[in-house]
Amino acid sequence: MEQTDSALLRDLIQHEAWGEVGSHAETMHVQDVAAALDDLEPETIARVLPELPRERWAKTVSYLNLNLQNLLLQQVDDETGRLIMSEFSPDDRTTLLETLPADQVEQLLKLLSPGELKHALQQLGYPEESAGRLMTTNFITVREYWSLSTALEHLRRYREDQETINTLYITDYRGRLQGTISLKRLVLEDPSRKVEELVTGEPVSIFASEDRTEAVRLIQHYDITALPVVDANGAMLGVVTVDDIMDVAEEENTEDFHKIGGVSAVGLSLRDASPALLYRKRIGWLVLLVFMNVFGGAGIAYFEATIEAVIALVFFLPLIVASGGNAGAQAATLMVRALATGDVQARDWLKLLGKELGVSLALGLTMGAAVSILGVWRGGPDVAIVVSLSTVLVVVVGSMVGMLLPFLLNRFNMDPATASAPLITTIADVCGILIYLSIATAVLQIGTA
Amino acid sequence: MEQTDSALLRDLIQHEAWGEVGSHAETMHVQDVAAALDDLEPETIARVLPELPRERWAKTVSYLNLNLQNLLLQQVDDETGRLIMSEFSPDDRTTLLETLPADQVEQLLKLLSPGELKHALQQLGYPEESAGRLMTTNFITVREYWSLSTALEHLRRYREDQETINTLYITDYRGRLQGTISLKRLVLEDPSRKVEELVTGEPVSIFASEDRTEAVRLIQHYDITALPVVDANGAMLGVVTVDDIMDVAEEENTEDFHKIGGVSAVGLSLRDASPALLYRKRIGWLVLLVFMNVFGGAGIAYFEATIEAVIALVFFLPLIVASGGNAGAQAATLMVRALATGDVQARDWLKLLGKELGVSLALGLTMGAAVSILGVWRGGPDVAIVVSLSTVLVVVVGSMVGMLLPFLLNRFNMDPATASAPLITTIADVCGILIYLSIATAVLQIGTA
Repeated sequence: MEQTDSALLRDLIQHEAWGEVGSHAETMHVQDVAAALDDLEPETIARVLPELPRERWAKTVSYLNLNLQNLLLQQVDDETGRLIMSEFSPDDRTTLLETLPADQVEQLLKLLSPGELKHALQQLGYPEESAGRLMTTNFITVREYWSLSTALEHLRRYREDQETINTLYITDYRGRLQGTISLKRLVLEDPSRKVEELVTGEPVSIFASEDRTEAVRLIQHYDITALPVVDANGAMLGVVTVDDIMDVAEEENTEDFHKIGGVSAVGLSLRDASPALLYRKRIGWLVLLVFMNVFGGAGIAYFEATIEAVIALVFFLPLIVASGGNAGAQAATLMVRALATGDVQARDWLKLLGKELGVSLALGLTMGAAVSILGVWRGGPDVAIVVSLSTVLVVVVGSMVGMLLPFLLNRFNMDPATASAPLITTIADVCGILIYLSIATAVLQIGTA
Repeated sequence: MEQTDSALLRDLIQHEAWGEVGSHAETMHVQDVAAALDDLEPETIARVLPELPRERWAKTVSYLNLNLQNLLLQQVDDETGRLIMSEFSPDDRTTLLETLPADQVEQLLKLLSPGELKHALQQLGYPEESAGRLMTTNFITVREYWSLSTALEHLRRYREDQETINTLYITDYRGRLQGTISLKRLVLEDPSRKVEELVTGEPVSIFASEDRTEAVRLIQHYDITALPVVDANGAMLGVVTVDDIMDVAEEENTEDFHKIGGVSAVGLSLRDASPALLYRKRIGWLVLLVFMNVFGGAGIAYFEATIEAVIALVFFLPLIVASGGNAGAQAATLMVRALATGDVQARDWLKLLGKELGVSLALGLTMGAAVSILGVWRGGPDVAIVVSLSTVLVVVVGSMVGMLLPFLLNRFNMDPATASAPLITTIADVCGILIYLSIATAVLQIGTA
């Protein structure tokens, strides 16, 4: 439904049917209007804006991608820019400002009023990827000793769009967060009752300097839609809302996903990323892994005599070596994800090691049995023994590497997701070559070079 | 903070200090109480429950893992079971019931009142992983022609805990959804005004039979906290809330994550999964990939004469072959994730192909240059030419396979994440062997077997 709305709007824009653009956009959600604009040139978007009602400009622009938001704000006249920037919610404003190079930030800051400027600079002062950067500073506070009718009266005065109005925050005279009260209770209880009679216990909160992933965890753990942000003294600074948390969770998931595939990605949108950026995010691991594979080559060189004696062994090399890498990649993937979601903890490693040992042995035996048939066919019973025995060992060793490396990285406060599938595959490859050719040399009784 | 709370509570339980268990748990959030219980035996939890206030039983149990919820309900007496089941929110109840084997579902259904039973069976009638399974049926509807004060009066009568009370749903006489009104507006506007004057346009909604991933997408796209669920006639059935959506999004991300690592995972918690289940989720791909690697072995056998003539070539085999696999795994990871988040669409494939061609060529040239140094050192200028040329080609081909396979799978309505790192690595390995040994045979002018 919304797909066709956006597509139709884009059509109207491309045919420059400006009158219809306005009337069609009016019936649409701002998110869908933004989706229609998201692929267009900033000049075109600047042309579309006047067709939309002024009060929807900021909201529409806030749903464009950040790069486009910036280009657009450079494109429009100062008055329009000022209107958009001042109607941005504080968290959207911070998100835009923090992605820009310093000189462009300055240009945009000029569009803010002194009050907004102070807020914006303060928020940019929190560490990158902190809860402070993520919060909106629009929230409503009430006092414990107020009656509900006073609180409602207070609310009426701040009636404009407050994202977080479904919960009111109770603060003391120094702004310290004491509790919360839901709008629901405020409305449904007797208006002469005091706020303090209805306050819900100590609220979950987060320090502004804490990592945003902690904000994600708290909102998920407590099933809440808004998380108050406080300073070191407990004074209330803002609120992180669940819609921002979902975006952060998606970004963090994307980062982990990229890492497991051996791409060092930091907030990478594939569509917007330049080829040069993609090159930089990928080349590091690739070159590192090339040099790790030299050890595999060296292993082969060491066992050259074995290979020359029984050249049929080379037939099984890719198969055996890859089996260890594949089983290891599986194990690493399972561990990295389980550590990331909190499904398992660092302290569970020994229990999981036992489980993985059992599972990988069963996997190895199954695959060894399959490979032994090929062994008999290609090289006779001796080769069959070598390849099936090697397969079992290689699968178990690969799985152990894949399982343990994420825990080791975690132990040394590194990201477990660094144990990527390509890294595990490479380590398992090198181990696999050494195991396979050692067993072959021993069983087939060949002298090494 | 909550970590220590949970740990302390667990200590008290393990020391059977029942009196203190109750008083300590009272100050805690139910989620943290559940976290403390989540590792314990059902018998122990059944012993702890009476120490908690009755009105917190259902909520606490709903935060335990599903397996434990089931065991616990078998453990407690019927009266307790009935109390817990009837106070479960409808979506929690459905989630529990849908994971159980049929005979155990029957036992639990006996604990429900006729009205609850009807609702539960109805909800289990929607397809698995549909929006209907996910919704809660607790919501509040008002009529367009009511005044705000009538609506408020109506609200007061349903004052008990309604998850979704921050939005009221406007339905016509046949229950069809007409619009929504926020509690905020209901409270802040003049009570004599009519609901219809304040109704917000056509609300975003979803059919009960639609996939739950569509519910995730809608809630993320529109930044809403609750999504109404309707039947084919537009009659309102329930509401999907953002907290459930976050859980679904996490599950879906875990599935994708596992798939890219070559594990066919369906709702797998690593901690709870039995070794037998883990074996089954992993063995399929591993055995399939073993047999695919036979083609690599066959490639080597075909070029046996080349290898025998220049045995130094084997030194570079792991390195060159792995480079293609690694670059391919990177490309596949980027594409699979971008398709999953909607960052790129199926129709973007040609644009992305061009970009990937450029990036992979740059990656290949860099790696080829690095490898050529090794080539001169190990085998002289001829071998250097062979290995560097092969590296460039293998990296480009591997990247193309990794980039295109997810799009192809998507085109044929299969899950792009099936293009896992191990699968891409294996395909790239086979291609790599053929490319490398073909180039070697041609450049070094060796006759093949």
